[in-house]
Order: sequence, then C-alpha cells, then structure tokens
Amino acid sequence: MIVMIIVLKNENAQLMINKLEKHFASDHQVFVHNNRVAIQGAHPADLTDEERAQASQIITDVPKAVQASRLFHPEDTIIKTPHSVIGGDHFTLMAGPCSVESAEHVMKMAKVAKDAGATVLRGGAFKPRTSPYSFQGLGKEGLVDLRKAADHFGLDVITEVMDDEHVPLVEQFTDIFQIGARNMQNFSLLKAVGKTQTPVMLKRGMSATVDDVLNATEYIAAGGNHQIMIAERGIRTFDNKYTRNTFDAGVIPVLQKLTHYPVIADPSHAAGHTEFVTPLALAGTAAGASGLIVEIHDDPAHALSDGPQALQPDQFKTMVKKVNAVRKALQAFN
Amino acid sequence: MIVMIIVLKNENAQLMINKLEKHFASDHQVFVHNNRVAIQGAHPADLTDEERAQASQIITDVPKAVQASRLFHPEDTIIKTPHSVIGGDHFTLMAGPCSVESAEHVMKMAKVAKDAGATVLRGGAFKPRTSPYSFQGLGKEGLVDLRKAADHFGLDVITEVMDDEHVPLVEQFTDIFQIGARNMQNFSLLKAVGKTQTPVMLKRGMSATVDDVLNATEYIAAGGNHQIMIAERGIRTFDNKYTRNTFDAGVIPVLQKLTHYPVIADPSHAAGHTEFVTPLALAGTAAGASGLIVEIHDDPAHALSDGPQALQPDQFKTMVKKVNAVRKALQAFN
Amino acid sequence: MIVMIIVLKNENAQLMINKLEKHFASDHQVFVHNNRVAIQGAHPADLTDEERAQASQIITDVPKAVQASRLFHPEDTIIKTPHSVIGGDHFTLMAGPCSVESAEHVMKMAKVAKDAGATVLRGGAFKPRTSPYSFQGLGKEGLVDLRKAADHFGLDVITEVMDDEHVPLVEQFTDIFQIGARNMQNFSLLKAVGKTQTPVMLKRGMSATVDDVLNATEYIAAGGNHQIMIAERGIRTFDNKYTRNTFDAGVIPVLQKLTHYPVIADPSHAAGHTEFVTPLALAGTAAGASGLIVEIHDDPAHALSDGPQALQPDQFKTMVKKVNAVRKALQAFN
Amino acid sequence: MIVMIIVLKNENAQLMINKLEKHFASDHQVFVHNNRVAIQGAHPADLTDEERAQASQIITDVPKAVQASRLFHPEDTIIKTPHSVIGGDHFTLMAGPCSVESAEHVMKMAKVAKDAGATVLRGGAFKPRTSPYSFQGLGKEGLVDLRKAADHFGLDVITEVMDDEHVPLVEQFTDIFQIGARNMQNFSLLKAVGKTQTPVMLKRGMSATVDDVLNATEYIAAGGNHQIMIAERGIRTFDNKYTRNTFDAGVIPVLQKLTHYPVIADPSHAAGHTEFVTPLALAGTAAGASGLIVEIHDDPAHALSDGPQALQPDQFKTMVKKVNAVRKALQAFN
Repeated sequence: MIVMIIVLKNENAQLMINKLEKHFASDHQVFVHNNRVAIQGAHPADLTDEERAQASQIITDVPKAVQASRLFHPEDTIIKTPHSVIGGDHFTLMAGPCSVESAEHVMKMAKVAKDAGATVLRGGAFKPRTSPYSFQGLGKEGLVDLRKAADHFGLDVITEVMDDEHVPLVEQFTDIFQIGARNMQNFSLLKAVGKTQTPVMLKRGMSATVDDVLNATEYIAAGGNHQIMIAERGIRTFDNKYTRNTFDAGVIPVLQKLTHYPVIADPSHAAGHTEFVTPLALAGTAAGASGLIVEIHDDPAHALSDGPQALQPDQFKTMVKKVNAVRKALQAFN
Repeated sequence: MIVMIIVLKNENAQLMINKLEKHFASDHQVFVHNNRVAIQGAHPADLTDEERAQASQIITDVPKAVQASRLFHPEDTIIKTPHSVIGGDHFTLMAGPCSVESAEHVMKMAKVAKDAGATVLRGGAFKPRTSPYSFQGLGKEGLVDLRKAADHFGLDVITEVMDDEHVPLVEQFTDIFQIGARNMQNFSLLKAVGKTQTPVMLKRGMSATVDDVLNATEYIAAGGNHQIMIAERGIRTFDNKYTRNTFDAGVIPVLQKLTHYPVIADPSHAAGHTEFVTPLALAGTAAGASGLIVEIHDDPAHALSDGPQALQPDQFKTMVKKVNAVRKALQAFN
Repeated sequence: MIVMIIVLKNENAQLMINKLEKHFASDHQVFVHNNRVAIQGAHPADLTDEERAQASQIITDVPKAVQASRLFHPEDTIIKTPHSVIGGDHFTLMAGPCSVESAEHVMKMAKVAKDAGATVLRGGAFKPRTSPYSFQGLGKEGLVDLRKAADHFGLDVITEVMDDEHVPLVEQFTDIFQIGARNMQNFSLLKAVGKTQTPVMLKRGMSATVDDVLNATEYIAAGGNHQIMIAERGIRTFDNKYTRNTFDAGVIPVLQKLTHYPVIADPSHAAGHTEFVTPLALAGTAAGASGLIVEIHDDPAHALSDGPQALQPDQFKTMVKKVNAVRKALQAFN
Repeated sequence: MIVMIIVLKNENAQLMINKLEKHFASDHQVFVHNNRVAIQGAHPADLTDEERAQASQIITDVPKAVQASRLFHPEDTIIKTPHSVIGGDHFTLMAGPCSVESAEHVMKMAKVAKDAGATVLRGGAFKPRTSPYSFQGLGKEGLVDLRKAADHFGLDVITEVMDDEHVPLVEQFTDIFQIGARNMQNFSLLKAVGKTQTPVMLKRGMSATVDDVLNATEYIAAGGNHQIMIAERGIRTFDNKYTRNTFDAGVIPVLQKLTHYPVIADPSHAAGHTEFVTPLALAGTAAGASGLIVEIHDDPAHALSDGPQALQPDQFKTMVKKVNAVRKALQAFN
C-alpha cells in the first residue's frame, strides 16, 4: 500500500488541509500532523493543481507505519505524566519489583526507586508467565498496592495490561500501560489501549524486526492514542547461555532515526542476571535511550518472579550514579 | 517447580487416585490420566508407604508442561470432529483461502478443498495483519459464509480467534479454534479457549522454542480443554530473502516424542511463495506430521491477503496426490 | 557490481563468443557457458550493434555469483565420479563414520554403507573440533585406511579438507573434497580446491544465507572447478535443546531454483540425535534433495566423534528403505 | 572431557608443580599458570595424598577452554605492543581504512588516526570478500604501505591474516594479527598464529556462541601464544534491514567475567552505516570494552570496501571525544 505525504507551505495550511480532507477522506485514510497530510493509497497524480501548488514537498517513499514515521512527524514526541516528562532530551528512570508481591513490599521498593531518582514505579499485577502453574500476579489487589505506593512517594505508575478486557480496570490505576513483549502483536490489545488517552510503553517482541515494532505502534496510533514509547528489552538469538536475551543497543539509534516516539531501554530482561544489568543499562544510556526501566528487589532469592535479574537497592543506586555520569558526559555534546 | 508422576499398578487405580487426591489436592495441583497421577510441587518423600506401594513407577524429572508430556499421557491424543479424526495414524488435510473474501468465493474454495480430499475448511474472518491499514477480515459475516460453505460440502471449519472476547462468537461457527503464531503467548486468549470444549490448533510462535510451545498448550489444558493440536508454520531465522520463514521439519519428530498432541504442518506460511509450498508439504509429511493446513486461492494475484503463498486449485490437487503417495510409501513401514 | 548475460542465437555462437571475448576480456571478467556469455561490469549499452543483433536475450538482473546461477547455466550440473552420478534425477547415498577410527573399523562401516546401497564412503581424517583438546583425526593414516576400505567395496571417497596446504595430500586419496560448515567462507581454502578438478561438496555454514552459499561456490568456480555440490546440514537458530541444528528443508527447493549445482541433505548434523536422523533424511528427500550424507557407527557410545547422531547399521538400512520408498513414490510425478 | 584445576598453597609451588607434571604429563595435558595447575581428563581421586595436601582448592567444574578461563588465570591479560598497552584498565583505540588502498591514502588515514588518539593503525591487505569478483586487497604491497604509514606516525599495525600460509609474511609487517569473523573456526589458521608470539585479535564469528569464541581462543593458546584479544563485531540475527549486524553489548561483560583476555568492540561492522557507528562505539565503551577498532575514510563514497560504514575524519574525532568523556565518567567508579 502506497502512502503519500504532502508537506504544505505554511500559509493557509488549515485551509489546504480541509480541502485535502474533503478531496480524499471519503476513499482514503488521511492523517494530519501540523502542516503535513498523509494519504493512504493515493498518488501525486491524484492531486489537483491547486493542491500541488500548495505543497512545499511531496514524499512518496513512506513506510506503512506512517504516523510513527519522522517523515510525517519530524519532531520528538514528548509524553507528560504527573511526575515525568518522557522523550526528547529528557531522561526517565523507571524502577520497581517485577511483580507486586505485597502492599508492604511494593511500598519499600517505591522508596528505593524514589531515593535513587526514579519518577516512575513499575510492578506487575497481571504477570505473563511461561507456565500456567507459575505465580500469575495479585491482580486488582496488586494494582491497588502499586498505586498506593506510587502516590505515597510521588511517583507515576507503569504496569502491564495483558488483555483488552482489563484495559478499563488497569487504566484506573496506572499512568502508563505496559504492553509485554509476548503481546507486541496482540492486535486486539493494541487497539484497546489505542482507544484510551493513557500513555503506552510497547515492549519489543522477542523476534520483532524494527518494522514490526513500528507497525505495532501504528495499531495504537490508529486508535487516536499518540502517547507511545518503545522499550528494547533484548531479542532472542542463538546464544542465551549467559544472558537471557541479546540486548540490541543498535536498535536505539535506528528507532530514533525512524520514529519520533521515545525509546526506553530495559536492561533487566535483556541481561537476565544481576551482574550484567548495569553494563547494559550503561550501554543503552550511551546509545541514546530516553530512559531506563529496571527491576529491583531487596531479597532477589525470594522474589516471586525474575529474582535472578533484580538489582538490590545498593546496586541500583550505584547503577543510577553511573548512568547519570554517562548522561552528563554526553550532554556536553548536544 | 518440581512435578512428580505416580504410575499406579492397575488394580484399584481409582481407589488409589481418590486417596492421592485427598492427600494432595488441597495444597498441590493434581492431574489424573488413566492410572497416572501428577502432583505439582510434591516429592516422593511426601508419599505414604501405602501410596508408594501402589506405584509401579515414580517419575520425578517431569517438564513443567506436565499435561502435555508423554510421561503423563503416553498414548496419542486423537481429536474427533464431525468430519475428521486427527492424530495417531490419521492424516488430516485442511485447506482454504487465507481470508474469507465473500460467500461465493469461500464456497468455490470449499469445493476445491473437498474435491482434493480435505476434511477441514480454513478461512480467516478476523485477520492479524502486520499493519492496521491492511484488510482486517470480514468479521462475523465471514464466519457465516465460512460455516455455510463448509456445511454445504460436509467439511469441518477451522478459523482464527484473535481475542478472548471473541471466543463465544467464533465458537458458534467453528469446529476448531486456530490460535495464530503472534498470539501463541497471549495467555488470556489461551485461558479463554481452554475453558471451552472446542478443539484448538495452536500455531507455533515465530521464535518459540519447543518448551515455549508445550507451556503454551498447558495454558489451554489447565482450563480443562485437552483437544489440542500444534502447527509448525516456520520460524524466524537470519534468512528470509527467498522463503518467508524457515520450516522446521525437525520439530515434528521432536514434538511427537515429547507430547501426545497431533502436529500439523503449515507449509504455506513457511514457504511464503507458491513454488516452495509443495516441497515443504512433502517434507512435513515425510517427517511425520499428522496433517497439513494449506492456503488455496483461484486468483492469487487478487487475493485479499497472502496471495503469493496460495496454491491454485490444480497445484493443490497435484500436491495432495504427491502427499498421499509419500504417506502410502511410508505406511508400509508402520 | 553489475553483470550482464548475453544469450546468443545458436548460429555462429562460437564466432560471436570469440568476438565478445575480444571486445570485453581485457577489461572485464567474461564467462562462457554454451551459448551464454556473462560479462562483469558491462552494460547493454556497451555492446556493438552486431553483438546486440546476435543476442536472443540480454539478461541484466544477474546475481554476483553468476557462474552458479541458472540464468547463466540453466541445465543441472551432473557430477560423475568412478562409482556415482550426482545431480539431475540421480540420487546419491553417502555414508560412513564421522571419523576414520581404524583400518578395521572403517572397513566394517564401508561394508554397511555398500550393503545398504551407498556409493560414496564418508569419513573424516582431519576433524574440525570445537576444542583443540578433542580428537583431531588420524591424518594421513586415516586417509589411507578410508581409501582402502572404499576401494575394497567399490565405493567413492568423500573426506574433509581443512586447509589449503592439505589439498594436494587429500586429493590423492579422495574422489570428493568436503568443505566443512565452519570453513564455508575460508576463501583461501575455496580458492585452493577451485584450482583442482576434483569434485567439491560445500557444506552450508551455520548462519550462511542462500546468497552467502552461492557466493562461496563462486570462489570454487572462479578457479575453474565446476564440479560443485552443496550440502544443507542444519542452521543455527534460537532453539537447539532437542536438535543440534535446525534442518532447513526449504533451502533445498530454493537452491534448486537458483543454481544448477546438486543439493545434498545431511540429516545427521542437523538432528544431532539418532532418533531424529531418519525423519530429517525423509524430509530432505521429499523436499527434493539429490542425495544424502549420513553418519553411521556400529557402536555409537564409543565413537571418537559425534556418536550421539550416528545411525547403527540396522537403523541405517531401514532409513534407506524408507528413503527409497519416498523417492519411488515421487518419481511417478516426474 | 573433564578438567581439574589445582590451586596450590603458595609455599613450594614450583616443587609441587614439578611433581604434578611428573605425575600427570605423560598421560594428560597439563597447563600451569602461577600457582595453578590444570590437568585434562583427571579427577581429584587421581591425586596423591601429598598433592591433595598442597592444594588450597581443587576446582572441577572447569570449561573445556581452560587456558581462557578466569578459573585458571584470574588476573587480566595485559598485552604490550610497541605503542600500546591492551587490557586491564587500559583503553586502546585502533582505527584506519577497511582496505589499504594506496601508500598515500593509508598515510593520510594514519595521520587522522594518530591525531585523534589512536595507537594502532588498522588496514586490510588481504580482504575476505563475499564475492570472488570483489576487490581482494593489495597483498604484500598493502602490507608494506601500511607498515610505512604506521611507522611514520608511531603507531602499531593490526591487519588480517587469512590463511596459515600467509602467517610468516604478515608477521613481518604487523604487530597484531587479526583473525576475521569468517575464519573464527578456521582451526588451521588458529593453530598457525598460535605458534607465533605475535598478539592476535580474534573476531567473533557471525553466529558464534560465547563458548565457541572461548574454544577458538584455546586453539591459539594451545600453541603457546597467550597474547589474545577478542573482538565483538556484531552477530547475525533476524533483522539486518537497518544495521548490518546486531551489536551484542552484553557479550562484553559476559566475556570479561569468564575470560582474562581483553575484549575490543568493533562498532563499524556491527553498524554497517556511518550514522550508527558512534552510538555503538559509546555502547561498547559504556559496557566495558577495553578498546575500539573503527573504520575511517576521507571519501567513503569511493572506498574500495565497506565505505558505507566508515567514519569521516571529523566524525571520528567527535566520536573519540565522546568515547573519552564516557570513559572518564565511568573511571570515577573504579
């Protein structure tokens, strides 16, 4: 399917946009961003002389995921939540336990996150586990505990929503929806969060190509929700003996070139082992990520899920210091 | 999590099963199949002397997906639908268009399927497409048309269900649920079909390991639905220039060793190009698959989805003849 | 680099070939096959009017590995060794121990191979082992033993050559050079065997794309040796828990479409475990391979290398019967 | 194959080492490093009472690549070349053109490398190219030019050696042998450089696991050459549309944990495109690499090989400044 983007000369953009919509919207999908109009399935030859005259540029080699593309939306998407600004030159630290384990525990972890400088508290209440017999999360009770802990410390909440039926429930408690890697192409779920106005962090699937990721964001954007961020959490390759996944540092600058959505690095799921989390957090930061999402636990050996990859509070604090040092070192070049 | 399987001496098995359930079921998950009792999280040392005495064998090195395992369920699962018997020595041919495109078209394709010997008609009414702007299927109308065509020719229906909310609707029209590769770890959906008694064909995810596939079946079985088959449809590897995916012929005997569920080969999605579908259908058959699911279309160039990999009616007939020749040649060795 | 193929009208082809060589050979590489002339780095516009007039077709979208391409060499390459005819409609069975272990043992294995219908005896004298401390092969002594066993039973020899210095030595003893997967892009070695006239079986590298394989054959062909066959032996993917590699059945018809060189299937290295060798041998045969190369051993538990994937003599005999049954079943369709 | 490491109490270590060698060396491979003695194929039960008494620790779960292991050689290997110190806390910058193109050009590039702070000049004289018809390098003439340029600016030379026959020639001109990714398991070549005392940089193969890499270093160490460094240059995964390979940042801390050899990052071959080289250089540095090897060219569009991934002089200078800033930021934590 061909997509065409018309970049309008600035004067009278709104007038021209109206004309283009009138001309095309009955038969084509039309997207508008500032002075850019994208039309699905139309060719430059379909434009009237007037339309062509008002265009400063007509772009025809446009990817399917047009709303995600920098060709359509050149400037960075900046997402504002109560306690965070995500994207652009901002750097956002998200941390918390893999699962919400109890009200007390998540409160304790929230303090650790806050003290180290995080502005977003993570924690799973609905857990996508490989086996149906593993702990599946505390459900609504976990959401309540998570929200309470975040509010106590002035943090935002990010938590996973696993199916479209849960979207309204989870939305009551979270500031950011997390879509897990296994659900990256659960299109029903993507459509459901796309109909909300709550920011969404889409985790890259284990074997998702860059184009797959961008097309998945487009399912969200197509519903009207443009508050999207993408998380790189490691991909599946031929070697997982020493790390759980292969952290793809290169996808960070690639995505930043192609799309305006912020890219967050998840070193925990990539590493799979505590000792490799900090090097990957640093690699992701140095490669240009707009933030990190990190799993922490004060007693990893007894964590209800993913203990082996959790940083203990002191390790987390040191990680944050190093990350900040790298960021500061690189900011001098902006 | 440790699982223990107790194989009971045949006499009084039911009595002993009752005792074991009484002993363990309050604290552990207990599964029973014939004279085998699997207990999650229990050790041989937890058994009473009497329990131990009634066991002809105690198996402790059991995979997490215990209900899928041949250790728990040694004999092949045989699935009976109105027009087909799937599994064991049976061979089931499923064919049809990628998408239901119209009542007339699916009727025409049903005739092609029936004439060549298929007993199951495939066709998508809800389509998981990479881009939200691609054709998403006819929805309920497509289900109606598909059912009508199948009934006209005395065929079973297999069709994809994409989210848990649609399970009741799709169940009214289908004999077999298809879970797509992208949803293989959509655990909410797996749980939803697990609560029905309609057979399920689970397609292997693009980068799903054998253990991932078996754990995914366990989500269905855990709900009480044991009518499960697995489809190999090609995996994602480093080379997709000439084929869409890499058909993993080896997974067929591997799965047949580990699990009792039938394994179906999908050469269409693996090949991605018509010319390679028949060789892969033959490879899958020769490797021991219990059946094939194949996309057919009379006018591939104008198919609404996946045209490049559809066999035309004559190509399909020839494929079936070759497949049957290979099956017959190998049956002599059983 | 652009390549152009000129297909000459049949009359006076030799005369025209001479003219084209005179015109282009000083500045371009020129390859001739029957009435086809391939010229590297030249464009149709570079042809004289006379040259253009003598062409029945000018092909410009030619892969770099031009001599491997069916566009340049449409008919199958048929390789003749003393006891075998390889390629086209022929089917060649190669079998033997992974390593030559002793004169007696290889003699015994040669009898097993011969009795089951093999015409080529395999056996390694120089072994590429992952660890330098593993058995590295018997060297020249192994070659002597292998040759003697093959001659005793009227078999051809195939054996691996691991470096260019060994080419003259190995050539004295073998009918077919084997280039191992790890050396598929050892270009010095490829050039060295390319200068001989001994047939070469090139094993696909663990992560070699189809184009990589064809370019590797081109290193051999560029030296003047066109007696090339390609072996599919499984590729490296994300799952190797149950099989050693992933057998890529689809690459067989893909290669057969693109190149004229025979494609041989190696189910032993793909499977890695005896129980999966026969299903993969059948899959490879059904997918259209021109032959099989299989490891056999009468005492796998004590084999000096790769015991777990060796077929015992009886298993091998049964495999051959099944393979022949499948071949016969499919021959009816040619 | 089992390996046992005996850590001797410090007193009389040499005496005890002699005794252990006398006891085991006739039947087993024995390696000695300081007060550690590794014995292949021996068990603790094979030790005499005296031997056992002198051991402060006996380690039995030792990887095959024992000499590469930190269990055998706990402290970092530090490699000293005329102008560089590689490994440990040192950071080494290597840069130069992909191919030596001419005496003038390599001289110009040497100046760029030197001015930015590099101490090693890279440049290929023998080039492993996918196609035999691509530029194969200037050969000996290239080596002469490269050496001359390096000497002029007080730089070390690193250059690829592609086959064992060339080892003596290349050794005359280089300070560090480079073994290319495609030759990582060319065991004849590894053995050949293992017999020299010239440092070796082994590039990780495209689909080489961590264990494969370590076993490959062992081929070099087994010959007596312990001056080994490992380069991560990106691996082959399912997505290479936007980067040439997937840079595996995680392998850097993994290797540093397992082995004492320095790990160098090659962002150029991983990225494949100029714009992604600097982010990957930073990621590799932040993940802890002991150095970088980077391709530079003043006129990438006309480079004889790999132009698309070469940094221009100014880009290179900026990259080095950023890399140094990151290093400095992280040094504060050592």
